[in-house]
Amino acid sequence: MASDKQIKFGALLHGVGGNMSAWRHPDAVVDASVNFELYKKWVKKAEEGKLDLIFIADGLFINEKTIPHFLNRFEPIALLSALAAVSTHIGLVGTLSTSYSEPFTVARQFASIDKISGGRAGWNIVTSPLEGTASNYSKEQHPDHDLRYRIATEYLEVTRGLWDSWEDDAFVRDRETGVFFDPDKLHTLNHKGEFFSVKGPLNISRSKQGQPVIFQAGSSEVGKNYAAKEADAVFTVHATLDESVKYYQEIKSKAASLGRAPDEVLIFPQISPIVGETEEAAERKYQEIASLVTIENALLYLGRFFEHHDFSQYPLDEPFPELGDLGKNSFQSGTDTIKRVAKEQNLTLRQVALQSATPKGPFIGTPAKVADIIQQWFEAGAADGFMITSVLPNSLEDFVDYVIPILQERGLFRTEYESDTLRGNLGLPVPANRYAKQEA
Amino acid sequence: MASDKQIKFGALLHGVGGNMSAWRHPDAVVDASVNFELYKKWVKKAEEGKLDLIFIADGLFINEKTIPHFLNRFEPIALLSALAAVSTHIGLVGTLSTSYSEPFTVARQFASIDKISGGRAGWNIVTSPLEGTASNYSKEQHPDHDLRYRIATEYLEVTRGLWDSWEDDAFVRDRETGVFFDPDKLHTLNHKGEFFSVKGPLNISRSKQGQPVIFQAGSSEVGKNYAAKEADAVFTVHATLDESVKYYQEIKSKAASLGRAPDEVLIFPQISPIVGETEEAAERKYQEIASLVTIENALLYLGRFFEHHDFSQYPLDEPFPELGDLGKNSFQSGTDTIKRVAKEQNLTLRQVALQSATPKGPFIGTPAKVADIIQQWFEAGAADGFMITSVLPNSLEDFVDYVIPILQERGLFRTEYESDTLRGNLGLPVPANRYAKQEA
Repeated sequence: MASDKQIKFGALLHGVGGNMSAWRHPDAVVDASVNFELYKKWVKKAEEGKLDLIFIADGLFINEKTIPHFLNRFEPIALLSALAAVSTHIGLVGTLSTSYSEPFTVARQFASIDKISGGRAGWNIVTSPLEGTASNYSKEQHPDHDLRYRIATEYLEVTRGLWDSWEDDAFVRDRETGVFFDPDKLHTLNHKGEFFSVKGPLNISRSKQGQPVIFQAGSSEVGKNYAAKEADAVFTVHATLDESVKYYQEIKSKAASLGRAPDEVLIFPQISPIVGETEEAAERKYQEIASLVTIENALLYLGRFFEHHDFSQYPLDEPFPELGDLGKNSFQSGTDTIKRVAKEQNLTLRQVALQSATPKGPFIGTPAKVADIIQQWFEAGAADGFMITSVLPNSLEDFVDYVIPILQERGLFRTEYESDTLRGNLGLPVPANRYAKQEA
Repeated sequence: MASDKQIKFGALLHGVGGNMSAWRHPDAVVDASVNFELYKKWVKKAEEGKLDLIFIADGLFINEKTIPHFLNRFEPIALLSALAAVSTHIGLVGTLSTSYSEPFTVARQFASIDKISGGRAGWNIVTSPLEGTASNYSKEQHPDHDLRYRIATEYLEVTRGLWDSWEDDAFVRDRETGVFFDPDKLHTLNHKGEFFSVKGPLNISRSKQGQPVIFQAGSSEVGKNYAAKEADAVFTVHATLDESVKYYQEIKSKAASLGRAPDEVLIFPQISPIVGETEEAAERKYQEIASLVTIENALLYLGRFFEHHDFSQYPLDEPFPELGDLGKNSFQSGTDTIKRVAKEQNLTLRQVALQSATPKGPFIGTPAKVADIIQQWFEAGAADGFMITSVLPNSLEDFVDYVIPILQERGLFRTEYESDTLRGNLGLPVPANRYAKQEA
């Protein structure tokens, strides 16, 4: 690995937290998911730490059993755009589903954030795992897993085509001649495909990073193929270093077999760092959060991944129940992993539920220890960067204040932004406009 | 009219301008439509002037004959949300079409802007006049005028239902008991109608103004009925005081016949103030802009209202051509008015085209004269407020610096915001949540 290669970091911002009970922590801000001032503070902290990007996840269906953050939160387009106005260098990445939206609108919205932010937008493509989503969108049926990916493939093709509607030098704006644009540099897409017919052109031009950065988090077979073919960056979750190395190699080699350079698709495993002054202090922090989760809440949390399955019907302290294909059509790879690990390690339902509700990863300990593990994963080829998720209310602050400086000292992380675009900081090329003529 | 009643003002912000050639003016910023710093400056100026709101129009279809601003501009949700983050009191209103979007997404996006801004969002409901829009949204056919309004009616019913998903005190967030919300105060819509099936609940709660303010600009018969029934505020265009008084009375009386109080629907005619130190200076400013429009551009501009009709086929200096029903299914009332006025005043095509491209309203002259006419329209019952559109690049600045202080001196306009919500400043009530139990 080249010595000058540096780690990338994203910060997942999710209000009152990505689990059932983090909001009960004494340091938590209980309305965090709808508190814009707090999001602004987090973005400023992440930018102070020179992180590459912040990341906003999303979902389009809730019921009363959903985790608190999902019940009442900001929609990503609106949130990212507001954050663009109060930041200067950090990337702004958010989730939007290709199964329940229109490419013309979504292309415009991300292009607008990209221009408002001066080239810092990213789009995390999801296909909507939850079947209930159909009932919020006047649809009789939720498309099945593989169909969703076929739709997503055509959708992204349309979106990228629309983004290239105007060549970068199309707008002449010559007051004297009255020529506002050069019609030869305006391109009408005229897409007619299996799922979409979109004429174009788009009514907004490209930002200085060319097109928003495409994130993807699929980890089913279909999802991995999609990521290797389409994504600029992949967001993934692995419990161990070995698994992450295996995933990393798989995506990079799939990408290579499709003719892509390995550096064109960046792998970002999610990690949940918990730092303390001592090992024991860090462990106490984890226990404090873990102890807030009731078993009832843990079962609800687990159930959501399995199409809102009711786990309260099973005995808690017997082996994890046999579920057949349940979960295949929603969070396919996540539920496969839960089933496999439960069987391999002979876990009870209680153990699976509590571990799902408050996962304890290896990234726990003193700042130096957490930095060591990050360095180890990076140098072992498990990651190009990491997506930091906050287990505790102040995890992001702790990471920026205590872990980032150590990585900077080791030359593994930037001390100043290299660029003011997201592609620039991630080291990704600006995609040429498909219609632009090559220079002689 | 009660003596303490004051005028409301909105500022239409439209980048390089709402016509073909304003961008050629020496003071114009030629990339204004995609220049966020400029929009930010305008909003700060409007807020300095204590204006009630800024307004962002929109459209979903362009071709190479469209006016410059429409070719390359920000999408309203993204733009309004970014502007929310850099303002504190002014209302943020934008256009979004009910013919090419999903109520679940749009309800979330406006609710998010409403919360990010602390209760300052407004939604201008349009039904998309341009037939070409269908071709950008995988639709075989653009719904006809009256069908579009039927869809819009059900759409708003769904959106308002979703906005009330959570009662204002639903979120208990009690760390001790672990109760995050009160399930009795969460309401699932279960809407099943002619056009939409939307289960809900929405995954965001209400802002402190309850729901975003609903604007509407319909002026066909169907459009006026819709406005009288559904709108909090109506955006309209009239060439004369008499026409505006007639429209005002018609909407207020339609609203009254539907059981609404007259103050619950505010009428905002659009005006294009041009102020100069003297009458002659103001007239010179108009001529300067009018002279920038070529007849070719004026014909293109006119054609857009008539379903992109090609007016270059007619002789310029003969009476305005007979067009039959052309325009009925797009800008119905606007095209009716153009045809009627052309016939009444026996205008040539050239006259109609130039007058459409650079309308010259009565709001022109010294600041005192413009203030006089505004006061006259207001006191004659032609308006509750006015939507200011900028004919010249600095029209908004001139209006805030020279006209507003005169109206303030006369006690006709606020000197400080009464509220930090849009409903508060417009004097509109906060709508009660439909599910909330009445206090005993």
